[in-house]
Amino acid sequence: MSVLSTEVRAGAYADSIVLMQLQSDLQRLDGVLAAGVVMGTAVNLDLLRASDLLDAAAQQAQAEDLIIAIRADTEGQAAAALSQIDTLMKRRKTNDTGDFQPRTLGSALRFVPEASWVSISIPGRYAHRVADEALDLGCHVFLYSDNVTLEDELDLKSKAKAQRRLLLGPDCGSAIIGGVGFGFSNVVRPGPIGLVCASGTGLQAIASEIHQLGSGLSHAIGTGGRDLSSTIRGATARQGLDLLGRDTATQVIVLASKTPDRSVSPEILGQALEIDKPVVVLFSGLAAPGHTLGNLYFARSLTEAAALAVDVARGDLQPSSLRPDKRANGRHLRGLFAGGTLALEAVQVARPFLTPLHSNLGAPGVSDLPDSTVSRGHTILDLGADEYTVGRLHPMMDQRLRLERLEQEAADPETGLILLDVILGRGSQADPAAELAPILDQIQSRQGPPVVALVVGTDEDPQDLQSTAERLRAVGADVFTDVSRGLAHAVRSCVPPPSPLDPSVDLVALQPPAAAINVGLASLREDLVTQDLETVQVDWRPPAGGNDALLAILERMKT
Amino acid sequence: MSVLSTEVRAGAYADSIVLMQLQSDLQRLDGVLAAGVVMGTAVNLDLLRASDLLDAAAQQAQAEDLIIAIRADTEGQAAAALSQIDTLMKRRKTNDTGDFQPRTLGSALRFVPEASWVSISIPGRYAHRVADEALDLGCHVFLYSDNVTLEDELDLKSKAKAQRRLLLGPDCGSAIIGGVGFGFSNVVRPGPIGLVCASGTGLQAIASEIHQLGSGLSHAIGTGGRDLSSTIRGATARQGLDLLGRDTATQVIVLASKTPDRSVSPEILGQALEIDKPVVVLFSGLAAPGHTLGNLYFARSLTEAAALAVDVARGDLQPSSLRPDKRANGRHLRGLFAGGTLALEAVQVARPFLTPLHSNLGAPGVSDLPDSTVSRGHTILDLGADEYTVGRLHPMMDQRLRLERLEQEAADPETGLILLDVILGRGSQADPAAELAPILDQIQSRQGPPVVALVVGTDEDPQDLQSTAERLRAVGADVFTDVSRGLAHAVRSCVPPPSPLDPSVDLVALQPPAAAINVGLASLREDLVTQDLETVQVDWRPPAGGNDALLAILERMKT
Repeated sequence: MSVLSTEVRAGAYADSIVLMQLQSDLQRLDGVLAAGVVMGTAVNLDLLRASDLLDAAAQQAQAEDLIIAIRADTEGQAAAALSQIDTLMKRRKTNDTGDFQPRTLGSALRFVPEASWVSISIPGRYAHRVADEALDLGCHVFLYSDNVTLEDELDLKSKAKAQRRLLLGPDCGSAIIGGVGFGFSNVVRPGPIGLVCASGTGLQAIASEIHQLGSGLSHAIGTGGRDLSSTIRGATARQGLDLLGRDTATQVIVLASKTPDRSVSPEILGQALEIDKPVVVLFSGLAAPGHTLGNLYFARSLTEAAALAVDVARGDLQPSSLRPDKRANGRHLRGLFAGGTLALEAVQVARPFLTPLHSNLGAPGVSDLPDSTVSRGHTILDLGADEYTVGRLHPMMDQRLRLERLEQEAADPETGLILLDVILGRGSQADPAAELAPILDQIQSRQGPPVVALVVGTDEDPQDLQSTAERLRAVGADVFTDVSRGLAHAVRSCVPPPSPLDPSVDLVALQPPAAAINVGLASLREDLVTQDLETVQVDWRPPAGGNDALLAILERMKT
Repeated sequence: MSVLSTEVRAGAYADSIVLMQLQSDLQRLDGVLAAGVVMGTAVNLDLLRASDLLDAAAQQAQAEDLIIAIRADTEGQAAAALSQIDTLMKRRKTNDTGDFQPRTLGSALRFVPEASWVSISIPGRYAHRVADEALDLGCHVFLYSDNVTLEDELDLKSKAKAQRRLLLGPDCGSAIIGGVGFGFSNVVRPGPIGLVCASGTGLQAIASEIHQLGSGLSHAIGTGGRDLSSTIRGATARQGLDLLGRDTATQVIVLASKTPDRSVSPEILGQALEIDKPVVVLFSGLAAPGHTLGNLYFARSLTEAAALAVDVARGDLQPSSLRPDKRANGRHLRGLFAGGTLALEAVQVARPFLTPLHSNLGAPGVSDLPDSTVSRGHTILDLGADEYTVGRLHPMMDQRLRLERLEQEAADPETGLILLDVILGRGSQADPAAELAPILDQIQSRQGPPVVALVVGTDEDPQDLQSTAERLRAVGADVFTDVSRGLAHAVRSCVPPPSPLDPSVDLVALQPPAAAINVGLASLREDLVTQDLETVQVDWRPPAGGNDALLAILERMKT
């Protein structure tokens, strides 16, 4: 038999390390069989239940309440353990390192006026206030705290942008700036590769692999996992790409994240395409749009992202130059396909780069056309789809429908580029180029949109591959027999120039910090100190003792 | 001014080539400005409307009705054109080549008893009947027809399997069997690469690129676009993989399709993993699970699929051997991650191979756990997710939660393999291996499940990468510092052996056909004839003159 005693402290705050140590200390007390010291979140309640440490009192706890649960042999032992909590906590107060600890950021900065970075790792609900103050004081912010609201993130990043400062995070696990590691960071030799990574462990895995492959890093800029959401729109990633693009120490950039929101991807990749350096892109969860597109290399894994960056930096891989001379100038891609799989691959290549994208293919991230006879925005059509072929020949045998649509697209002032496939082989019509060439010739003579033709076939096919390609080229088409190259060319031509990043952050941001200020976990300060960085710890306490009601009153009195 | 006259013929059938030619003929008649000859589907009505050829009568047409619309200068000219329809159609009857044309498959087969293949390209609503008969007669079927129902496809493929025959399609655009091309096929030199492709143009694009790269094909097996759906479950793809796996002419296999249904992918890939040949996999729309996994190579595009196959066939790429000695034996993968991105990558690698897959990552194709404290099926957990870190240190600093879960998973009889990450570097705990090793040692001594550890870090990290790896190896863990290799190893160990394919098709199916029977488009027959294949055309007509009501009565009378 054993007894379970619980104490719930409403709105109590303690450094997480203190809680961890308190739990260990309690478990060592006489007669204590198990102890749980956690905040009352849903997951923590589940975990207490699974450990048989959840009683009715704890069950009522809120997320901001501290639960201390003790299972002991006797009631006396449980009560004795609970009575020692305050003594144990006082002993374990980790922030107490003996150094002078200013109580505010402002006074810390008077102490180390050369500090350019503030590292913040206090609980998320308090982090916005401190980060905001750090930006006001002109510092860059490494925001390790998680559980920060999306609204607060947007607010902080808007301010950071206006003040030409970096705000890395929230939930930024890792960054390396001018050789100084913040948060969790591996010891990686200096080198030519710069990282812009949404997640901490992604950054660490790529950085470690680059080091293991014998290369090294210039900088690693963490952005936090929500930076490429539709709300934040890559605020930090765009600053990071811009900085690394201008940084002379960086020769290759790695951009890694979960797949960006559909509305954000074109702007981020559009910016990456304009950088005069190779950029390795790893968007987890994205079906890659091929293996390269211009200066972009698409990786399928963390390991491959690192390996590609090292190969490119060493010159083992030469980035292809893809600077199409005919551009769509903000107008739209119109793809008229006879082949469904080619249309699908065109969608896959175009999707991360072009928006809005319409198609009759029903692919994710792509809209149906309200009226299939009229294209809208970027449009990719499979004219061989079932709905077009009831009682009608496949367009590989009879492309009249496509020829009509081709003339229609050419006459549409919204059309910026027309993309076609021409599929040769047995079964296909005897000479598709003979029908296409006169129409393409007309389009060219009227200064219509550029035309890219993907010719699929072999030199032994009945239609004569070479003559087909030559006759299409003669009437102005860009002809590709390599489908990937052709699709990359067509899509690249239609990517609009990215909106300018104004204002941009000064390159000084990437210099090794002269000093830093730490607010939160003392262990993160210690890691900065071991890197010989002068660092001041702020003796931060939750405002109003963590009491939200009181805090709200204090805030109102301020304004 | 012009006039529009329309004739709608209810349930009228004509070969699509006849319709195409009729439309051209009508447009050449005196005073005719435009003509449309189409079946009355929704898309066709839209297209007629867009061409100003849709009047009230045509608007009422059904999908099985033939619409003939004429716009002419005068009513007299329009009427004259309509009056010539039957004469023109008779003249254009394409099937009438002068050869003897049997009226049934059975009589055709008496004519060419050596025929092993029947090519069917009649309208989809009639195709099931003919394909079914072809299987009954012991032939393989190339089913070009589209608009065949999914139920009919399942029915036909079940029969084909039972009869040890191939049924390629429906909507099979292309196939090459023993050098003979069916449907749309490019002229490709013979070579060591065999294809199993869901789509016709995908097959053609890969085949053409392989030829352009100087290599060639053994066979190309088209499956139809719905073969990897949850209904059909890869019936034809599995036959194709099995045949090419046993075929001595095939050294490398390419498997290309849209992403298979979540429930089908593990079985197909499980079968591919058991083949003793390299298999290049292109699943369009799938975020690739790395660049290789055992004998599988994952391509990002049609062009890359061809290039990988050629490189592997030439020996320029050596398939890695991945035959883990410790297998999960049908039990489940349990991943306990400190790093969220590593967990996400584990999900991405595992997803196409393992089902059911649970996670707290909210990724597509992955289920949430009903109770986060208990794993179910294959489970991958990010223990550093926000919900676990409110008022609690990140597991990279404090892995007690993970250690408890590790013991729990080891004790679960459903656990087949445990996968862990161990992330080193500044900020992480001082010696994670010291805490892990005793527990792993216990698991090993109790003959618990195998453990795979991904160690992320560098030789300069404070924790000592080498000693960490050594101490984990000493207690039985398989340790990887290359994340991709480690994930591949762990997932491969958990892939159950595929269900056996019983009965399998005899390899004779891949021999060049001695003769073939064509039912439908005469042009497809001509392509077989130009390949010197003896081919008999069946003079097929829609049963009951295309009248569905009458047809239903006839069917009832049969039974």
